[in-house]
Amino acid sequence: MQQQSSPASAPKQIGFIGLGSMGSQMARNLCSRGFRVKGFDVRAGARVAFEENGGTWAESVRDAATRSEFLLLMVVNVGQAEQVLFQSGAVDALPAGATVILMATCPAAEVEQIAAQVAAKGRRFVDAPVSGGVAGAASAGLTIMAACNDETFELVKPILDAMGDKVFHVGERAGQGALVKTINQLLCGVHLAAAGEAVALGAKAGIDPRILIDIFSQSSASSWMLRDRGARMVANDPKVTSAIDIFVKDLGIVLDAGLRLKAPTPLASVAQQMFLAVSGQGAGQIDDSQVVRAYRAMTADAGASQP
Amino acid sequence: MQQQSSPASAPKQIGFIGLGSMGSQMARNLCSRGFRVKGFDVRAGARVAFEENGGTWAESVRDAATRSEFLLLMVVNVGQAEQVLFQSGAVDALPAGATVILMATCPAAEVEQIAAQVAAKGRRFVDAPVSGGVAGAASAGLTIMAACNDETFELVKPILDAMGDKVFHVGERAGQGALVKTINQLLCGVHLAAAGEAVALGAKAGIDPRILIDIFSQSSASSWMLRDRGARMVANDPKVTSAIDIFVKDLGIVLDAGLRLKAPTPLASVAQQMFLAVSGQGAGQIDDSQVVRAYRAMTADAGASQP
Repeated sequence: MQQQSSPASAPKQIGFIGLGSMGSQMARNLCSRGFRVKGFDVRAGARVAFEENGGTWAESVRDAATRSEFLLLMVVNVGQAEQVLFQSGAVDALPAGATVILMATCPAAEVEQIAAQVAAKGRRFVDAPVSGGVAGAASAGLTIMAACNDETFELVKPILDAMGDKVFHVGERAGQGALVKTINQLLCGVHLAAAGEAVALGAKAGIDPRILIDIFSQSSASSWMLRDRGARMVANDPKVTSAIDIFVKDLGIVLDAGLRLKAPTPLASVAQQMFLAVSGQGAGQIDDSQVVRAYRAMTADAGASQP
Repeated sequence: MQQQSSPASAPKQIGFIGLGSMGSQMARNLCSRGFRVKGFDVRAGARVAFEENGGTWAESVRDAATRSEFLLLMVVNVGQAEQVLFQSGAVDALPAGATVILMATCPAAEVEQIAAQVAAKGRRFVDAPVSGGVAGAASAGLTIMAACNDETFELVKPILDAMGDKVFHVGERAGQGALVKTINQLLCGVHLAAAGEAVALGAKAGIDPRILIDIFSQSSASSWMLRDRGARMVANDPKVTSAIDIFVKDLGIVLDAGLRLKAPTPLASVAQQMFLAVSGQGAGQIDDSQVVRAYRAMTADAGASQP
């Protein structure tokens, strides 16, 4: 019996780099759908859970890539992705014609560059960021925004379907997936700042912010962000689920994309200023729902601070 | 038997002014809950349907107010409300201590003035605008944002409950209800312009706007407005459900409220400019989803128009 001589019938091997809070769940879902997953993470502590879920631990990035038809990256940022692919030698270790699937959130311009380098080495590339968080990863309910040519999309679709239930083919060119994720953040950031603007305006007229959040969660004024962050927005010192500075960064990526495409994004620009104002108060690490503090600060009674 | 001598056991009489597409449904729900409703509309055509629903037709505004414990106004705008209450003599015709319930959408500052005039004549006043449209009116599923003192709120709550299933007591002072409705429109306008900004940015990178709307309707980027208007936004010449100029006006009311309260609303300000841009293209009467045209116009290829 020669396992490697029957690729058509054998399950496909997937190298999986980045077994963090989301990646470990995504890898588990691949294993349970019958894919052979060879995983690696710089944190050795990820190994036990991964092997219990049916994966095979690799000793290095190169080891995970060797003999894998697909290499899936769920690393923290674009710097780690470049490290894995090029400096650590994953692309060179992949068989010719294998496919790199980049699922980490990265700026579109840098994804384009990575894709060009991967293609120059004779491997396929799929730009496929996700949204849905740990809960979506655990339930195989991620939204996946894939950009690649049609043939490659057909090839990777069974893999993506194992991790997400809303798999979109958003375009043919690498970078388009990353841009859709960027635009997702444009809307999230504007919606969250707008909720702060709404609550602060009402508060100035003596209306209880909790009543406003309650009403707007159920009316035509609702947004996913308002419903998700509303309770924290009207709390005094809420637990941090995502920091103010993350939106300063994400909206910066939006503005960079707009600059590159020569497409003005005035609402995103204003929203970023509001998050930046809170960061400028020295509060960049508090919960992003506290963008409302930028509005409150603008109208705070200045009498107390006058000499 | 003297009907009028047993007010405690007799059903309360409500004068209802404005039996249009929403008012007629609201009045029907009051009748079916056992209230005696005496209705009036300047369009005599409303009479047949109203009487079939169990109402009593009044011959004038004054007639509707006479012997009514409550006078409910569901007219088109604040000008009509003032006409009904003061020029047409409804307040004077109401019994002493009766309650005026203003449910039309009006600017907060003008509602405050009306409330003061009504109080000066010894009648109670409730500022209670609604959201939910004709569908909400028909199903008694309106959101109602009532501002008045606690005692008056207890008095009118059974009436409001007959028309809406989300009845909020938003504050003690007339004008606060109107302001909540105004802030609702702040969020709607910003969310709709943001959806246009998102779709236009994606389109500049060659991403199909229909795919973007599909993704963002299901992701953390979703808003009620994006889901409601998304399909129309990516259509070429959609049916008008609400015109661009309505948002120019509504966001103008938001900015006026901010000026009066000295509370900056930068996102609403930018959003208004985008609707105004489409109005400036001569398209103020097209569907409000077409705010995306302001973004498209900013990045349209200018080559064709050069000499």
